[in-house]
Amino acid sequence: MSAFRIPVRVYWEDTDAGGVVYYANYLRFLERCRSDWLRSKGISQQTLAATRGVQFMVLAVNIEYKAAARLDDLLEVSCEVEPEGRTTAIFHQQIRREAGSAEERELLVDARVRVVCVDAKTLRPQRMGEYIQ
Amino acid sequence: MSAFRIPVRVYWEDTDAGGVVYYANYLRFLERCRSDWLRSKGISQQTLAATRGVQFMVLAVNIEYKAAARLDDLLEVSCEVEPEGRTTAIFHQQIRREAGSAEERELLVDARVRVVCVDAKTLRPQRMGEYIQ
Amino acid sequence: MSAFRIPVRVYWEDTDAGGVVYYANYLRFLERCRSDWLRSKGISQQTLAATRGVQFMVLAVNIEYKAAARLDDLLEVSCEVEPEGRTTAIFHQQIRREAGSAEERELLVDARVRVVCVDAKTLRPQRMGEYIQ
Amino acid sequence: MSAFRIPVRVYWEDTDAGGVVYYANYLRFLERCRSDWLRSKGISQQTLAATRGVQFMVLAVNIEYKAAARLDDLLEVSCEVEPEGRTTAIFHQQIRREAGSAEERELLVDARVRVVCVDAKTLRPQRMGEYIQ
Repeated sequence: MSAFRIPVRVYWEDTDAGGVVYYANYLRFLERCRSDWLRSKGISQQTLAATRGVQFMVLAVNIEYKAAARLDDLLEVSCEVEPEGRTTAIFHQQIRREAGSAEERELLVDARVRVVCVDAKTLRPQRMGEYIQ
Repeated sequence: MSAFRIPVRVYWEDTDAGGVVYYANYLRFLERCRSDWLRSKGISQQTLAATRGVQFMVLAVNIEYKAAARLDDLLEVSCEVEPEGRTTAIFHQQIRREAGSAEERELLVDARVRVVCVDAKTLRPQRMGEYIQ
Repeated sequence: MSAFRIPVRVYWEDTDAGGVVYYANYLRFLERCRSDWLRSKGISQQTLAATRGVQFMVLAVNIEYKAAARLDDLLEVSCEVEPEGRTTAIFHQQIRREAGSAEERELLVDARVRVVCVDAKTLRPQRMGEYIQ
Repeated sequence: MSAFRIPVRVYWEDTDAGGVVYYANYLRFLERCRSDWLRSKGISQQTLAATRGVQFMVLAVNIEYKAAARLDDLLEVSCEVEPEGRTTAIFHQQIRREAGSAEERELLVDARVRVVCVDAKTLRPQRMGEYIQ
């Protein structure tokens, strides 16, 4: 199980008057990574919804803020998926500040996101394994 | 033609690292006012979409930033609608900082928002007068 | 320990293409409630930062999504604070959909937010009890 | 005067319940392009603020919405700067949907953004030419 990673740049829109990234916006970064991971496997969420009537919903998030990101920072967001039962999965996700060497990459955010696969109309859980492997 | 007004509080989410409200977020405040104005006339955008297949789309925004809003500020957002043709309307909107007297209320934002009424499926313009007066 | 509550209206800005409120935006609603709770106690976060050099930072969020909020929904966001040690506190927060009676108010979101009080410059933990009681 | 361009992916966070990108969020895309343009010239807005006490503020935006972007769309955002007086500049910006050939790239948004260079403390206009050329 190796992590999927994307770069994310911090812009003005992401920061707040405290001079750092607003705490809710890290969840946007985490979602970009999960969406790009699906895209990397050739899965289009739009197509999945249109042709199979299936979508993914977040059930729970446990997030720890270790250090703050700032304007212009280049971040690396990762996700590793751990299957859990037939209809849900856990995404282990981290956000690090990019720097010279791997050792220097400071951990900013550590998160655990629980996702369920549902029928878009009935919201009834669906087998995730047919769509994600 | 008298203006419809709503109060809007500035929270951390609205600000950026410059210590003031991020420029795009004033458009969110403007939209809240337009939605509440429709609601005040008994118009539910969800019902309109579901039963009549009609929705409103912004065609253009001209916005001038006169002064900046800050964290914790209590703002007053206004809108006055000016019909324009059969399918479009112009919303004249302002954002002021609340203060003691009316004279003291500093003008922060002056905007002109052009909106069209469309069929939600075909996106073809519809007569707005049937829904808004 | 009784809960502090605020109403929150759902606007277009809060929703996503799934037709419901975007998962990160519930954290904005939670923060509005914590800020208004401080305001209700006469505490201005801006004044606190300017005069005492103190601010609050979120250390961790555990959030469970039970049901989705939709456009135009009127929500009720609550917070109850539980002191934890000298420098941190836990906010127990819920988001419910407003309806007729208290019994009908559907629980949408259940969250636990851990906050620390820090010196704004050094980021060293400060005694929270001097500012919040 | 040739345009500077960046790619922007549309994520769930950018969309609203209408199934398209929320109208205020295009202004975030425009700002990302202006910030990356400055970065491409070796200008760090943080350094400029810290060492020269100078920052850029948006005075006005004229934006026309021609067509809507959707979830998963890959967009191209451009900016071309036109000096205007000593302290202000006009950014001509466009957002297009990426497609096969240049001819097919549909124009979604056409905008004109007026920016002023100010002293971060006094907010008095500063000569922009010393920082941007």
